[in-house]
Amino acid sequence: MRKPGLLLRTCAWTWKSVRMASTAASRLKPLENKVALVTASTDGIGLAIARRLAQDGAHVVISSRKQQNVDQAVAKLQGEGLSVKGTVCHVGKAEDRERLVATAVRLHGGVDILISNAAVNPFFGNIMDVTEEVWDKILGINVKAMALMTKAVVPEMEKRGGGSVVIVSSIGAYHPFPSLGAYSVSKTALLGLTKNLAAELAQRNIRVNCLAPGLIKTNFSQILWMDEATKERLKESLKIRRLGSPEDCAGIVSFLCSEDASYITGETVVVGGGTPSRL
Amino acid sequence: MRKPGLLLRTCAWTWKSVRMASTAASRLKPLENKVALVTASTDGIGLAIARRLAQDGAHVVISSRKQQNVDQAVAKLQGEGLSVKGTVCHVGKAEDRERLVATAVRLHGGVDILISNAAVNPFFGNIMDVTEEVWDKILGINVKAMALMTKAVVPEMEKRGGGSVVIVSSIGAYHPFPSLGAYSVSKTALLGLTKNLAAELAQRNIRVNCLAPGLIKTNFSQILWMDEATKERLKESLKIRRLGSPEDCAGIVSFLCSEDASYITGETVVVGGGTPSRL
Amino acid sequence: MRKPGLLLRTCAWTWKSVRMASTAASRLKPLENKVALVTASTDGIGLAIARRLAQDGAHVVISSRKQQNVDQAVAKLQGEGLSVKGTVCHVGKAEDRERLVATAVRLHGGVDILISNAAVNPFFGNIMDVTEEVWDKILGINVKAMALMTKAVVPEMEKRGGGSVVIVSSIGAYHPFPSLGAYSVSKTALLGLTKNLAAELAQRNIRVNCLAPGLIKTNFSQILWMDEATKERLKESLKIRRLGSPEDCAGIVSFLCSEDASYITGETVVVGGGTPSRL
Amino acid sequence: MRKPGLLLRTCAWTWKSVRMASTAASRLKPLENKVALVTASTDGIGLAIARRLAQDGAHVVISSRKQQNVDQAVAKLQGEGLSVKGTVCHVGKAEDRERLVATAVRLHGGVDILISNAAVNPFFGNIMDVTEEVWDKILGINVKAMALMTKAVVPEMEKRGGGSVVIVSSIGAYHPFPSLGAYSVSKTALLGLTKNLAAELAQRNIRVNCLAPGLIKTNFSQILWMDEATKERLKESLKIRRLGSPEDCAGIVSFLCSEDASYITGETVVVGGGTPSRL
Repeated sequence: MRKPGLLLRTCAWTWKSVRMASTAASRLKPLENKVALVTASTDGIGLAIARRLAQDGAHVVISSRKQQNVDQAVAKLQGEGLSVKGTVCHVGKAEDRERLVATAVRLHGGVDILISNAAVNPFFGNIMDVTEEVWDKILGINVKAMALMTKAVVPEMEKRGGGSVVIVSSIGAYHPFPSLGAYSVSKTALLGLTKNLAAELAQRNIRVNCLAPGLIKTNFSQILWMDEATKERLKESLKIRRLGSPEDCAGIVSFLCSEDASYITGETVVVGGGTPSRL
Repeated sequence: MRKPGLLLRTCAWTWKSVRMASTAASRLKPLENKVALVTASTDGIGLAIARRLAQDGAHVVISSRKQQNVDQAVAKLQGEGLSVKGTVCHVGKAEDRERLVATAVRLHGGVDILISNAAVNPFFGNIMDVTEEVWDKILGINVKAMALMTKAVVPEMEKRGGGSVVIVSSIGAYHPFPSLGAYSVSKTALLGLTKNLAAELAQRNIRVNCLAPGLIKTNFSQILWMDEATKERLKESLKIRRLGSPEDCAGIVSFLCSEDASYITGETVVVGGGTPSRL
Repeated sequence: MRKPGLLLRTCAWTWKSVRMASTAASRLKPLENKVALVTASTDGIGLAIARRLAQDGAHVVISSRKQQNVDQAVAKLQGEGLSVKGTVCHVGKAEDRERLVATAVRLHGGVDILISNAAVNPFFGNIMDVTEEVWDKILGINVKAMALMTKAVVPEMEKRGGGSVVIVSSIGAYHPFPSLGAYSVSKTALLGLTKNLAAELAQRNIRVNCLAPGLIKTNFSQILWMDEATKERLKESLKIRRLGSPEDCAGIVSFLCSEDASYITGETVVVGGGTPSRL
Repeated sequence: MRKPGLLLRTCAWTWKSVRMASTAASRLKPLENKVALVTASTDGIGLAIARRLAQDGAHVVISSRKQQNVDQAVAKLQGEGLSVKGTVCHVGKAEDRERLVATAVRLHGGVDILISNAAVNPFFGNIMDVTEEVWDKILGINVKAMALMTKAVVPEMEKRGGGSVVIVSSIGAYHPFPSLGAYSVSKTALLGLTKNLAAELAQRNIRVNCLAPGLIKTNFSQILWMDEATKERLKESLKIRRLGSPEDCAGIVSFLCSEDASYITGETVVVGGGTPSRL
């Protein structure tokens, strides 16, 4: 059980100490033997990222709040021949975060990659109508839990000589989505969280970057696009020609976790189909 | 008691419906007869803003968590001949927020201006060492309470035909301050809160802008500058020649609340002495 | 003739060496005795800025490319009781820039303020159709000449112990305006020019800031709003309720040149009525 | 000679009309059969990008101003078994730009990818000392020629059903590099050029993105790092632990040109090792 861990530690050391041009082999499987945790990954963008990391060679541990959803997603991805396991994890609960990390350590000897995804949005409507309780929930899951999830994996990443974190924010971080005010504010906070974590963790060889998806066609966002008229209006106002797919977000996340991104940290990449973002 | 309110309502209406070049009189007292609430205003930047709004003609209601601090600040500003009253207000408490608004309504018949200041920072150190409790406190006061404080004044501003909100963020919103990680993240969130509130409140003729002070010499920030060596290092790294004073932040806030800023909303102005911010 | 200059130099020295709260007198005339150059100021935003600086106490020298336009604008502003003179200046020509500065020195003994405005747009259409010649013109006037205009006044500002520059960019700097591609690119460059000039001139006590107007109702922009349908579509897409007026841009420019902004440098302020800009 | 072109056109059509998960084969050679032009690519970042595109399956045409440099770089890359040809191209000259495009069409039947690199910096020193001539050169090459180079390839990309452009800017676009003022301003302009080109070319299925490298160890930048003390001071001020290598910039450029980035357009990615950039 410890043997793959040892092997991996050696790999990590190599990664750290020798700068080589990536080889054809490393390109086919850029995350070979890496161990990746992905939260909120039994559906939508999280699931697409989990699949891609596994396709790129990682051992992936997926998670979300319901056992049934975890089981289904694991079965699906294993059915595609991928190295994927899963465990229930409510990222807002300390014991769940710890169990998720412990699961990866038990299964694969450590953690190299964390994709910190969570998109609680218990309220659609005016930001003026958001109650204290809803603010607590949104900031507690979308911001605080993202920080604490990182905190939970850092000791394991340090044992491996480094690692990579990608936090999932939203284009709403830059420009308000109507009816998604509090959610958008929490996503803006993640841009800052990324910068702060990157600055603090650089000395431990841990990179922290951020993904800001635009309007992606998922169950989560369907309130925005399931009505054809609303969808067309959104596309018009966002100046995009098509809605994005979860897969559109997966490649860049895998890239940011790979050796090819080793000089990229503290950055947010927008996957928005040309919708206004920032310079 | 109601008469000033009535008068003010008329002024607000005029403001809304007629665009005139501001006159010499309006420049001397650009906030004449406006009623302004300023939170966390018995010291530092908040106090300087309160003083300036009053100098510019506003009736100001200041507040902070301790009665003694409120009394001292009120005495000081009244001693300068300014129209300043005060009340205790812990912005994290709903009843305090409501009492603050009610005080202004009782004293002056309404509210035109809110300066939403709060800078809780119960923790200096690595962001990795921030606990759940500290996150809750920082996000709860610095983000959630700022939103809810706005929510509390909006109905009063609507009665007056509009109003102006300025939220106090920090240069830390754009670039990490070492040892101030969680605080900085909360300040980044305020950039988004400003955008979202501005978008939502535009139709009610309420503008929402944001101030991002750089390194300002206050009691709050003294941990950063009281040691001469640290101060010099900070100035070097921030590329500024001098630390700012609270007064450096006051003029722009008054400006943003004035008629001259009536086409500015959703914007953040950095007062940072040239320290790196953003394009 | 030299006497006002001497007097002014003393004022500048006071400004530099003593930090006082601004007094009632200084608020009524915050730019009292300052000498201000404003380019492209016989119409639109430039004219509104020139008027406001003069109303705020400055001696203003306006300019634009045609003598007739200069004469009319000077007559108009003098008719309002303002201290305004004018001279022809094509900012793209070195001798014109120098004559403009020399005029101010001859009339008022020096220069304290430069408003660097220029908005050449010889081409509406696709950026793919912009020719070499048009690029040369747009970059030459909107970027290069703005830098060289600053260069021309810096020696005079140094003699006075400091000064203030405001460069006029556009909201197009942040987000493309359709059919205004090359123009927008030149305006993006100005965001960087502001940062670079501010960094370099800080040690000479010269502050450099930038104004980014949104959709302002001027002759220059009328191609965008004179057709009612286009105007409504623009307002819809810009999420603003009304077009701005040139006066909406004037107050902030005067503010940025005043003592109240003495800790603000390298910053851009958007006057856009809530149109998407940046965090 | 036309056959590969035909084949490629079919591929492009497939790319456009069918959205498939990328397969293992496409990952090993994500740019298989694509034709890529890279300007200023016989050294430094441009060379590293050219090599990487070729390693990832593209037929690459490199270029720079001197035949000898082109010959050496072509020989080197061909010696690595890569499909690389070259031609002399001074991007500031219309006939050179056209010849570069014509070369690719002649050799490979069309163009799918353009990497628009150029970093003329004829002047180190204060921005106040930059002359008209130097401004013309810097803006003419670093901005105008980048736009016109894109213009030159667009018709060929349209014939293929789409394409991808990556413009090389610099971290200096966001924050001034001392002594590199005019250069930095030109790089800021490229952030806007990227946005404008992306907006305009989206309907032709051409994506336009931008790379902003931080301090990369190249001949071009050696004035900044060859002195050990300066290098250490720079690293300190940039908050990075090591200088980047040209290879650090190559992976992301290849990624942005690949199918995995098909929903990313108008964006700038910073490769800066954690140096302050933007949210």
